[in-house]
Amino acid sequence: MSKDEIKVIPEPSLRRLVHYHHLVKDLIKCGAEEISSATIARELYLDSIQVRKDIQFTGIVGKPKRGYNAKELLAAIETVLNWNNTFQAFLVGCGKLGRAMLHYPNFTNYGLEFVAAFDVNPDMTDTRINGISVLHTEQLVKLAKRMHIHLGVITTPAEAAQEAADLMIEGGIEAIWNFAPSRLKVPENVIVENAQFSETLGVLTNKLKNIGR
Amino acid sequence: MSKDEIKVIPEPSLRRLVHYHHLVKDLIKCGAEEISSATIARELYLDSIQVRKDIQFTGIVGKPKRGYNAKELLAAIETVLNWNNTFQAFLVGCGKLGRAMLHYPNFTNYGLEFVAAFDVNPDMTDTRINGISVLHTEQLVKLAKRMHIHLGVITTPAEAAQEAADLMIEGGIEAIWNFAPSRLKVPENVIVENAQFSETLGVLTNKLKNIGR
Repeated sequence: MSKDEIKVIPEPSLRRLVHYHHLVKDLIKCGAEEISSATIARELYLDSIQVRKDIQFTGIVGKPKRGYNAKELLAAIETVLNWNNTFQAFLVGCGKLGRAMLHYPNFTNYGLEFVAAFDVNPDMTDTRINGISVLHTEQLVKLAKRMHIHLGVITTPAEAAQEAADLMIEGGIEAIWNFAPSRLKVPENVIVENAQFSETLGVLTNKLKNIGR
Repeated sequence: MSKDEIKVIPEPSLRRLVHYHHLVKDLIKCGAEEISSATIARELYLDSIQVRKDIQFTGIVGKPKRGYNAKELLAAIETVLNWNNTFQAFLVGCGKLGRAMLHYPNFTNYGLEFVAAFDVNPDMTDTRINGISVLHTEQLVKLAKRMHIHLGVITTPAEAAQEAADLMIEGGIEAIWNFAPSRLKVPENVIVENAQFSETLGVLTNKLKNIGR
């Protein structure tokens, strides 16, 4: 695809498209063949004009009064989210969260496959977690280059996250999914998506305050 | 605080305030006594007018050309995020992710303390994880009422999430932090904050697509 053809989709739309994906998948399981933007809007408490605008980014066109073909809609959302591809990924930090991630069975549905994990703890290296080799972080750069890895996941403690990111970038990794509660400094061409728990927790606890808790 | 005094802060501002919190804490550790909005903007790649607007929600006032008193700023952000309070919370779903959450040592910094965990698996009930009792979900409603629990965390598989939410709501829980990849149907007065991994992953994998991966 040439650069000219790429539509940059706003992040709030992308986030909503993830939720449409879960919903459409559920509805297909329940036998739905056509799904309207009004249904999606009602189920997810959104405005149906908003839903239509978001779905327009996928390029799919619905039929008046009937909606979208359910399977085509799911496929179109998966194409936009790039979940019809599978990215081989490295994970750094095999503590409790890292282990939970390595055991999570559904990442392949989201285009992610862990091919190796890394840790600095010598007790942990050269073991396997859920069948995935755990190696010392010293080996990361060389292996990332050799295997042409594009995606890295950081589940280290805060103070180890920048070093993990530096190694990933040196190894040619272009996109980092960061779970450590730490800001990463990266070159402009590296994509970082922060998935810190604290972000949604802060929104929740603030709302509890608003109801007097 | 009376309802009239409550300022509802937009969610994007709340999410950024969480990141300011991490940064300000780091900078205080490094010896900073005053922090300007320009510094925060530069470190987090944001616009400094945006940063000033967000911080205005906390009610703190900076000094021209010097910025905010660092400790006062941290305290003001913690007050807005309600992290100077501690909420006792129940967790439902003691699989890998649930266990990782129960072991995470830093939730008390974010105003969250797990007081009990629940699961439907009889092999797991009446055990302890990181010192926290695991009980059968049958006991949730009664205990939530008796202990006046306001906050619930769901780390079940998708198909068990709605039932967990229903029990929580029956027990009087007012705010749910949902990690299960599932939409929850809740009454209007119940707060739900979704923390599904897939949301940030979708943004990341879409961006990989934009650079031709």
